[in-house]
Amino acid sequence: MPHEITFNRSAPYSIGVDVGGTKIAAALVDAQGRISGVKTRRTDVSSPEKTLDSIASTVFEVINDANIDPKDIKGVGLGIPGIVDPERGIGVASVNLQWRDVPVVQELQSRLGIPCVIENDVKVAALGELKYGAGRGLKNIVYLNIGTGVAAAIILEGKIYRGQNGMAGEIGHAVVDVRGPQCKCGGRGCLEAIVSGPAIVQRVEEKIKAGKESSLRSLLGGGITLQEVYEAAAQGDLAATEATHEVAHYLAVAIQFIALAYDPQRVILGGGVVYASPLFMEYLLRSVHQLASESWVFRDLLTPDFIQLTSLGANIGILGAAALVDF
Amino acid sequence: MPHEITFNRSAPYSIGVDVGGTKIAAALVDAQGRISGVKTRRTDVSSPEKTLDSIASTVFEVINDANIDPKDIKGVGLGIPGIVDPERGIGVASVNLQWRDVPVVQELQSRLGIPCVIENDVKVAALGELKYGAGRGLKNIVYLNIGTGVAAAIILEGKIYRGQNGMAGEIGHAVVDVRGPQCKCGGRGCLEAIVSGPAIVQRVEEKIKAGKESSLRSLLGGGITLQEVYEAAAQGDLAATEATHEVAHYLAVAIQFIALAYDPQRVILGGGVVYASPLFMEYLLRSVHQLASESWVFRDLLTPDFIQLTSLGANIGILGAAALVDF
Repeated sequence: MPHEITFNRSAPYSIGVDVGGTKIAAALVDAQGRISGVKTRRTDVSSPEKTLDSIASTVFEVINDANIDPKDIKGVGLGIPGIVDPERGIGVASVNLQWRDVPVVQELQSRLGIPCVIENDVKVAALGELKYGAGRGLKNIVYLNIGTGVAAAIILEGKIYRGQNGMAGEIGHAVVDVRGPQCKCGGRGCLEAIVSGPAIVQRVEEKIKAGKESSLRSLLGGGITLQEVYEAAAQGDLAATEATHEVAHYLAVAIQFIALAYDPQRVILGGGVVYASPLFMEYLLRSVHQLASESWVFRDLLTPDFIQLTSLGANIGILGAAALVDF
Repeated sequence: MPHEITFNRSAPYSIGVDVGGTKIAAALVDAQGRISGVKTRRTDVSSPEKTLDSIASTVFEVINDANIDPKDIKGVGLGIPGIVDPERGIGVASVNLQWRDVPVVQELQSRLGIPCVIENDVKVAALGELKYGAGRGLKNIVYLNIGTGVAAAIILEGKIYRGQNGMAGEIGHAVVDVRGPQCKCGGRGCLEAIVSGPAIVQRVEEKIKAGKESSLRSLLGGGITLQEVYEAAAQGDLAATEATHEVAHYLAVAIQFIALAYDPQRVILGGGVVYASPLFMEYLLRSVHQLASESWVFRDLLTPDFIQLTSLGANIGILGAAALVDF
């Protein structure tokens, strides 16, 4: 066992680290979930060694700036994009970090001298919601992240449910339209190939190319952003509105699937696609209620507060990672 | 609490009862899962009272015929089609039995004088597979029933996972084709509206009506059976083969979803649609492997024995119900 954790349970602080493919963010978190001294830094992905160095530097910066004793830190929790083996403390595979079987915990503990624990970033976000956010007081929740990637994390009886290979909830690669677009994974019509940020942009671009009227036409070729799609849709732009509607409907279908598969107390939505646009959420909820009005099976499960937007916003990664230390 | 169970743990037998909408089957089951003295009887659904009477009569027939003392019976386990509250011993809702909030356990215990326990029939089948069948020795399995209805039952850490409302696994009413056929639940394109037995027959009928060549054309109007569809497909009939292929592909997509949602050790298939036709299973596995060859995410989960057909056959309901007594 390379990885034996002996957290200092009586210490007042944890450190939460949100490790992204482009940015690392870390901060001190107290027992009430209050964040202080957020430090960020670009992620150096030139090698696993360098990435670990940049993580360690960010953590040291948090500690030094707060002017506290490392003994006052319970432990460091880290949310990692990709497949993680928390038991062995290994980053198994991360496309964004270009990692394969990196002994993250061992390496970081030797750099930091503080107990560390890692978990997949979406699962970390779910823990954050459970402990500090829209899942507070609940035991069975699903957190669905819709951003560049799409994945769910499942909390059952207050604990992360991982499944046999840590893949439980990877429904971004479930097929929701057998005639749908090609996905990065090689499949066709995967949820991620339809409702992710890049997929929405692609859908708008295809509509414009097919002749649909749009104020975004002049941006074609230069790369339209999701934000521009949402702004155009808010102005009533035809291509952007249609695409947003269609995607929201597929996401509603996925939420219905989640409801029937896990029968959770709540589904919490996070990620840029839902977080960046009240209009998208409005379309989504309209589609959800349409599906529920049609089918009694779904209607029975759809309590008024069944679907909620993340209440932690941009801090969800840091808070969830800090929550890891206490789980 | 109307329902306190005090099973006689040292008794050598349990009785398993498979309560169907048309037929009740009951038998003695010993600790090794050996069945003896199967008794069947038509289900009297003219009233809940009458249904309970016909269940009790079937159980008495098993006991009398075996010529054993009721003290030698640990308890009676019953699999019920529909929504069941096992804690309170209540049949909450069953379309097939025309039940609404029937106090099954209380009523049967007073008729039989033996401790009783109830559970939804698909969940019961999953327990049967776990204890005696294709799930033996495993802890995390999904049992997917594809018959007239379509539903999954989830076993996590060796126990039935019910969810908040006992609806976890009701994926028969998840939408797998937003442009798909109308479902009985009111929705459109539900899994059950595409892969259930009646849905396969309907698909064949529609193909024939649309002009597709078929040996089943003369049966149109009189009601084609699933068995006739499978036999025709085995003979190379165009409409039957096409329909079987298409449906098998949708079922493969659903199995991929199950794999990604729960990441179980095994998915076990039961019910008439898969059980009645080696051809259907062949098409299904072909589609599953096609999906896995396309997407690495699914490929990683698809171990050689990941998908298995029920190994308990027609006795699954009785065995599973008997297994209830020991859980």
